[in-house]
Amino acid sequence: TTTYHILVLPGDHVGPEVVTEALKVLDVVEECRPSLHFEREFALAGGCSINAHGVPITPAVLDQAASSDAVLFGSVGGPEWAGSHPNPESGLLSLRQRLDAFANIRPCEVLVPSLVGASPIKSELVAGTKFVVVRENCGGAYFGEKVEEEDRASDLWVYRAEEVERCARVSAAIARIIGRDGRGGGGPAVVWSSDKANVLASGRLWRRVTQRVFDKEFPDIELRHQLADSMAMLMVKDPTMFNGVIHTDNTFGDILSDISGGITGTLGILPSASISGIPGSGRCNGIYEPVHGSAPDISGKGVVNPVAQILSLAMMLRYSFLLTEEASAIENAVTRVLDEKGNGGLEIRTKDLGGTASTADVGNAICTAV
Amino acid sequence: TTTYHILVLPGDHVGPEVVTEALKVLDVVEECRPSLHFEREFALAGGCSINAHGVPITPAVLDQAASSDAVLFGSVGGPEWAGSHPNPESGLLSLRQRLDAFANIRPCEVLVPSLVGASPIKSELVAGTKFVVVRENCGGAYFGEKVEEEDRASDLWVYRAEEVERCARVSAAIARIIGRDGRGGGGPAVVWSSDKANVLASGRLWRRVTQRVFDKEFPDIELRHQLADSMAMLMVKDPTMFNGVIHTDNTFGDILSDISGGITGTLGILPSASISGIPGSGRCNGIYEPVHGSAPDISGKGVVNPVAQILSLAMMLRYSFLLTEEASAIENAVTRVLDEKGNGGLEIRTKDLGGTASTADVGNAICTAV
Ligand SMILES: CC(C)[C@H](C(=O)O)[C@@H](O)C(=O)O
Ligand SMILES: CC(C)[C@H](C(=O)O)[C@@H](O)C(=O)O
Repeated sequence: TTTYHILVLPGDHVGPEVVTEALKVLDVVEECRPSLHFEREFALAGGCSINAHGVPITPAVLDQAASSDAVLFGSVGGPEWAGSHPNPESGLLSLRQRLDAFANIRPCEVLVPSLVGASPIKSELVAGTKFVVVRENCGGAYFGEKVEEEDRASDLWVYRAEEVERCARVSAAIARIIGRDGRGGGGPAVVWSSDKANVLASGRLWRRVTQRVFDKEFPDIELRHQLADSMAMLMVKDPTMFNGVIHTDNTFGDILSDISGGITGTLGILPSASISGIPGSGRCNGIYEPVHGSAPDISGKGVVNPVAQILSLAMMLRYSFLLTEEASAIENAVTRVLDEKGNGGLEIRTKDLGGTASTADVGNAICTAV
Repeated sequence: TTTYHILVLPGDHVGPEVVTEALKVLDVVEECRPSLHFEREFALAGGCSINAHGVPITPAVLDQAASSDAVLFGSVGGPEWAGSHPNPESGLLSLRQRLDAFANIRPCEVLVPSLVGASPIKSELVAGTKFVVVRENCGGAYFGEKVEEEDRASDLWVYRAEEVERCARVSAAIARIIGRDGRGGGGPAVVWSSDKANVLASGRLWRRVTQRVFDKEFPDIELRHQLADSMAMLMVKDPTMFNGVIHTDNTFGDILSDISGGITGTLGILPSASISGIPGSGRCNGIYEPVHGSAPDISGKGVVNPVAQILSLAMMLRYSFLLTEEASAIENAVTRVLDEKGNGGLEIRTKDLGGTASTADVGNAICTAV
């Protein structure tokens, strides 16, 4: 048997609810694959850690994360900690930095045809949307030097060439994995690099280094540059235009990947991975968390959609453990459960997707389907 | 007679085409109001200035702008100047800085009911959308100290309290002008302040200072805070949610105001004003330009939509010259021309809005309607 060490950080509000369902799915994978053993440790992060220890994540938990094979992360924050300093979110930032989880991968797609209607965008425009945002996750303005005075405050939006390079390599790897047809075929997908090279020095570095990496290392991959502001606009106007990979920095990636949630209208099913290595070049540690936050307004009611967390687990199996088949099995199970056609005329969905199923109903159905 | 000195900077590509139409409309205003005289000087900015003088804007033109009453700006840039350093856009940035045009005002609305369909967003969601983005325009990452080395580059995302304060006062003034009903009535509109206070030191300053200004000076205005990433998502999912004023910094405002163009699907009709004072407290210099860029792909064909430039002219009359009635006359004329109901069953629209009219057709029709 191979043993994988997973640190589970359920976090606050809906975090523990969705993590519970993902762990049920992991149980099923373990049952079906006797040669795999998933060792789980649990710890606090976010508001619950502030309550217990006064900080959003303790050095001990950061150490534990660093010596694990991967971290399953729920969600952190809530109105209870509105004034707290440091805030719950900074626990997540410390974790990203500690694991050097420099590439945040966020796929955006309409998972099943019958969910096209969940989008605020007209069906004929949004159908077929399938792109992956690769966001640089450990640099830029969110991690640069901060100065905080009474009457003046600053963040340094800084990049070194190596930081752009390794992120470009992840984007290229993802372009090969998803392929031009979105299913691995047709040659590598197009990579859209997004920046504000017309205004920012860091944006000019981003563009120049990205271009150099692709010219030298990936001449077969088509690279295009798009200013971040017009990309935000075009993503809304014509979302399939960016089918492929969106390669972008921490700040713009933060915004552009949230727009993805707006486009599909289904934030509750969007997973993410923050990884510390290049896909395809071996195992690496990573943080796997839903794109949605802690949703204090619906927490504790058993109605939150667990799909984003479950798909994040699938990403863990794929990127940190190289268990491609098992990852696909989970993804296919999710699609079947969400789609009435794949599920005997009965799709099972939580309220956000227009259904009446509970968090556990969806989790259990996915377990059965796996 | 009162004389107003306008510096006209048509710029590149479609810039001169749309500026021509706006000046025709200005002629009509002048004819109808013999007591008003609009003196116009013309100069180069952008790529055309690079060609002529090697720089995107000369010191002499900056002086000219500073001693004018307002600047009518077309659009700058194009593939011809892709590698040029400095680039055409930096001329615009220098101009903003020289005039201290610190508040960029970008209204977003579906101007006439029959244009609801131009939006990529479902009609029932987008109908009734009406908000104004107030973007801080002379500070933040776009103007902070830049370091540009071979292997490292940075931009300082910095704000001083005064910069946030004056922008907050503009947002408050706009909230009073547009009103809760979007037509000046129902008390002041809601102000949504957007930042990343959970990550950025500058974002925490932004939030704290904004809150202080509203508490002290505008206790009757409802102020809400929204993180910039989730705002981007929610603008797409539920655009009417932010009806009112969006008050935000330079970087987030750049992106969020472009999303507005995506939401309405009608970038060709969105105007902007960059002003150097608080609306309602006297005349001030400003830069009036369409949100759309220089559109090299359609320039020279007489098909570009002049409405954004013409509405920018209306903003000039309103904010720089305090000619409210004249501004409204232009705005109403635009609405009538775009709307078949107001125009005898015949709306006159360029291709981007599904019509067949030329740039000049639309300009002339607006002149007649004025
Ligand atoms: C919670 C916050 C620190 C985080 C970020 O801004 O990176 C979140 O918005 C995200 O996108 O993962
Ligand atoms: C042209 C560019 C410098 C400018 C900016 O980023 O401010 C433009 O995108 C805008 O939004 O007015």
